[in-house]
Amino acid sequence: MKQSDVIHVELGERRYPIYIGEDLLQQRDLIASHVVGSQVVVVTNETVAPLYLSQIMVSLAAKQRVTVVTLPDGEQYKTLETLGSIFDQVLTDRHNRTTTFIALGGGVVGDITGFAAACYQRGVDFIQVPTTLLAQVDSSVGGKTAVNHPLGKNMIGAFYQPKAVLIDTQTLSTLGDREFAAGMAEIIKYGLIADRPFYEWLLANKSLLKNRDSAALKRAITRSCELKAEVVASDERESGRRAILNLGHTFGHAIETFTGYGAWLHGEAVAAGMVLALKLSCVRGAATEQDLADLEAFLSYFGLPICAPADMSLGDFMSLMALDKKVHDGRLRFVLLKHLGSAIVVNDVTEQELSRIIA
Amino acid sequence: MKQSDVIHVELGERRYPIYIGEDLLQQRDLIASHVVGSQVVVVTNETVAPLYLSQIMVSLAAKQRVTVVTLPDGEQYKTLETLGSIFDQVLTDRHNRTTTFIALGGGVVGDITGFAAACYQRGVDFIQVPTTLLAQVDSSVGGKTAVNHPLGKNMIGAFYQPKAVLIDTQTLSTLGDREFAAGMAEIIKYGLIADRPFYEWLLANKSLLKNRDSAALKRAITRSCELKAEVVASDERESGRRAILNLGHTFGHAIETFTGYGAWLHGEAVAAGMVLALKLSCVRGAATEQDLADLEAFLSYFGLPICAPADMSLGDFMSLMALDKKVHDGRLRFVLLKHLGSAIVVNDVTEQELSRIIA
Repeated sequence: MKQSDVIHVELGERRYPIYIGEDLLQQRDLIASHVVGSQVVVVTNETVAPLYLSQIMVSLAAKQRVTVVTLPDGEQYKTLETLGSIFDQVLTDRHNRTTTFIALGGGVVGDITGFAAACYQRGVDFIQVPTTLLAQVDSSVGGKTAVNHPLGKNMIGAFYQPKAVLIDTQTLSTLGDREFAAGMAEIIKYGLIADRPFYEWLLANKSLLKNRDSAALKRAITRSCELKAEVVASDERESGRRAILNLGHTFGHAIETFTGYGAWLHGEAVAAGMVLALKLSCVRGAATEQDLADLEAFLSYFGLPICAPADMSLGDFMSLMALDKKVHDGRLRFVLLKHLGSAIVVNDVTEQELSRIIA
Repeated sequence: MKQSDVIHVELGERRYPIYIGEDLLQQRDLIASHVVGSQVVVVTNETVAPLYLSQIMVSLAAKQRVTVVTLPDGEQYKTLETLGSIFDQVLTDRHNRTTTFIALGGGVVGDITGFAAACYQRGVDFIQVPTTLLAQVDSSVGGKTAVNHPLGKNMIGAFYQPKAVLIDTQTLSTLGDREFAAGMAEIIKYGLIADRPFYEWLLANKSLLKNRDSAALKRAITRSCELKAEVVASDERESGRRAILNLGHTFGHAIETFTGYGAWLHGEAVAAGMVLALKLSCVRGAATEQDLADLEAFLSYFGLPICAPADMSLGDFMSLMALDKKVHDGRLRFVLLKHLGSAIVVNDVTEQELSRIIA
């Protein structure tokens, strides 16, 4: 494997590699080299298992005990109840503290598996094998794990870093268009908040990306992971700078809660949320109408929503956002652009300003 | 407050104080000084709430939002389901990331509240106010938090340190004899594994202790906390030395699982487990028949069990212990005495040796 295909998340003794390549699941030794003990728990879902589980199992053939937990597919299953069902199987099969959890699937599988690994016997190893574009550039990197609660998304969880992340870009060949687009929403976010040249490259290459050109995708994923790894290394537990990764998320989470988990994909809600964040940036003079039009055009090109649900009022937003983790002592925090390629967290947005962007 | 009443658990940036005194709940500013934000969640149970909740509430009168979660009393409620019910209330009351959880009660309340604090929005502050002797000398110090699973005790949890521990020895005045004795089992354990003079002092003062003499109790609690704090500081996540704190626990956990949570108190199971551990130490020549007789006499004086349940066979022990967190790659680990006042972890105990001590 070429050196350039590995990014490291620099977190001291919790440092870990992100491998990015076209055939990683075929490399039998790669996963096995990150499993220390003789026991493994593979958590996946009904959609992903028929596609990629057998490749993982080949890599784990030498292990003494391999338990496969297959979850139903969907955000609505990212709950404490599903977490409990994972522990039921893992304890029935008597896995001990030396076991390794492997998350094979999208963001839901990664988040719940990471949280299960964080809690099982107070913490066991885990490895992320994300199979959706969104999970590859977002949730599998950075150690945020969680399940949802009916009253709020990701309300129950842990910061818990994987031992390794394996991104096999071949898995994107089976991804549906809607899920693919949801991942592009997060990718364009990295450009907006942290890298203007990358943003402009994305705008210029949207057709290659939409056609899933292998080289273009690999470049987009690698740069996104680099940017996220760099931000996470500087602020693992989101006490400061890491919050810029949440551009569009305060609005997006409110949309997801309003519509019910699973109705909108996370990336779709973030897309509409980013448009709202850019409108707010325009109100404050930090972005231009042209910036807004460019973003809307890019998102629309991928079929992503650029408006909140029509029946969602300012009052709905206010009451749902008040529950957000990003609230600090009663003040809502928003990520806005400082300028294209740079973001800032503010806590002084007024209801009046919000009323100008939420019709 | 006198300097001598504070012990510090030395964990670098997670360093925290343990206050020990007779009237701590009366000191209005003490708890409040460790609550950073304006929101507080007090978790307690039906037994403790009528006795001490009002004192805590006086200390928190200036806080903006105080939610009280009152759990049913008992180990059988230390479950994922109860954890979920805590989150239901805390989210309904819209607590954010700046909230502080306070555990007011025994070990069950402390363990589940600590785990809830570890998971809520990926981690908020918490404070331990243990009201049982067992919790004061054991579970409230050291950062082990967890809930049980039907297939094993403390299987789901986190290492998560409190910001402070407040031990008000006055709370012991309302403690039942059985619960009081369960705490004495853990106290004698500290002498056995780490401090022979303390052990001998305990044996010599058992009558003062049984009569709940205030000065004797404070000395016993303080020395126990010092010993635990010192062991925890040297090995927070139990990768080595901390395991000596588990003297009697491999057997004890098996007894608890066998009898069903709540039938035996944790301290009672540990008492019977320590006798088995000492018998095993005798078999290996590391303890004498006199040591064993002294321990049995001390435990019996407090009404603690010194035998496993009569209907529990070697096979029961073997199959339940195989599930224990202390299993490493298929080998059971036991804590044995090296000599009185010093302990060692071994993984080479044979089934034959076990058959000699489990009739």
